[in-house]
Amino acid sequence: MPKKPFLLLVNDDGIAAPGLHALHDSLIEIADVAVVAPATEMSAVGHAITISDPLRVTEYKREGRFFGYAVTGTPADCVKIGFWALLDRKPDAVVSGINLGGNTGINTIYSGTVSAATEGAILGLPSFAISLNTYRNPDFSYAARFARKLVPLLLERGMPRGVYLNVNVPAVPESEIQGVAVTRQGMALYREDFDKRTDPHGRTYYWLTGQKVDAETDPDVDDGAISKNWVSITPVHYDLTRYDVLEMLKDWKLDP
Amino acid sequence: MPKKPFLLLVNDDGIAAPGLHALHDSLIEIADVAVVAPATEMSAVGHAITISDPLRVTEYKREGRFFGYAVTGTPADCVKIGFWALLDRKPDAVVSGINLGGNTGINTIYSGTVSAATEGAILGLPSFAISLNTYRNPDFSYAARFARKLVPLLLERGMPRGVYLNVNVPAVPESEIQGVAVTRQGMALYREDFDKRTDPHGRTYYWLTGQKVDAETDPDVDDGAISKNWVSITPVHYDLTRYDVLEMLKDWKLDP
Repeated sequence: MPKKPFLLLVNDDGIAAPGLHALHDSLIEIADVAVVAPATEMSAVGHAITISDPLRVTEYKREGRFFGYAVTGTPADCVKIGFWALLDRKPDAVVSGINLGGNTGINTIYSGTVSAATEGAILGLPSFAISLNTYRNPDFSYAARFARKLVPLLLERGMPRGVYLNVNVPAVPESEIQGVAVTRQGMALYREDFDKRTDPHGRTYYWLTGQKVDAETDPDVDDGAISKNWVSITPVHYDLTRYDVLEMLKDWKLDP
Repeated sequence: MPKKPFLLLVNDDGIAAPGLHALHDSLIEIADVAVVAPATEMSAVGHAITISDPLRVTEYKREGRFFGYAVTGTPADCVKIGFWALLDRKPDAVVSGINLGGNTGINTIYSGTVSAATEGAILGLPSFAISLNTYRNPDFSYAARFARKLVPLLLERGMPRGVYLNVNVPAVPESEIQGVAVTRQGMALYREDFDKRTDPHGRTYYWLTGQKVDAETDPDVDDGAISKNWVSITPVHYDLTRYDVLEMLKDWKLDP
């Protein structure tokens, strides 16, 4: 029997989050697993790293047994410190999630869950982020099984250098899943609102809310696919260069 | 005389940072300017947004006069709250910086300075981030003049939807600047180290340090260009999709 792969698990909802536990419990059936996750919830931290503050690491127990390392940092910090300082073995892949809430469209760039997979890809490891598209009454079981199916495929097929996967799972019973769609990142915009309130001490504060302006319906787009109950897999990378604009810019008279 | 453009200025070093003040003082010669910037230093916050906490806004004074709004949030928060809540006029462009320290290569994805320009592009505004490639004894004057030259060009020529510019300026006297290079984002990797220390109370903590593994020397790459004293301009976008991998993934047997 071939050696079990060794997976680094991370998330952004924090080490106590049920989505991470469901992912762990599914993946230990096929792999050795190390968990390095934020000590507290870190949603919408984007691709933050902690430079100005030290990181603390504690051993986190679940049901009385060691479950993983809790880090006072971001998801990206967790991958870095796991890889470079905590683990005595190089992981074969990084799996980030299961996030409570979808990470699709332009939200991808704010996602701590995705940023952990980005960090895995930067380290040259096959990596994916997986998110369940609901904030209420999550049932992570199908998404956890899907992750277990994806890991061996990813390890066997591999990815080009710097490419990783952003997986979003509709929050419906498995019988209603239509299939798996390979998608591109949606570009639908948000109309942001700031709720202006007054605190008990009479001071003003603002709270961000946001509403998607146009829903994506194209099934080739992440949001469109999950809205039609397809699992969405988007290959992403961390090269932000917009290559087709390079030549256009060279025509500008920019010299000093 | 044509109407002056209206610019939203932001940064990630905080509203008190000299780089922002230099940018402001240069751009007010050609534009009306509103400053909405983090109340405190926000380096390496990446593309974070603040959802779980309220934002506070205070009027920040410089030399006894109103200079701008200080926000208890990230650079991306500043652009959002400026656009949607604080300003009574829609800006013509977003300019983010001048950052103390370059934002090149894979550091681009961790950069709060760049994320503010990303947010501007999401709002459909011509946007750029500008950074000075030094952490010591910065002289922002040439970078500030370069920004003043770039703004009218950007407003006149425009950018495709969703594209914005990441500008990096070498920290050398203007006479040593070789020219302006249109570049792609570098992909050089870092070897991270975590300095493991013990605090005065006997507890362990870790501090992130990092060292670039291979220096980029190609002048078509951001890092390579600035190392040879060229101003680097990289057109970037926030679509992370890796299009050439879509077809490859469709060959995987992924259906449930």
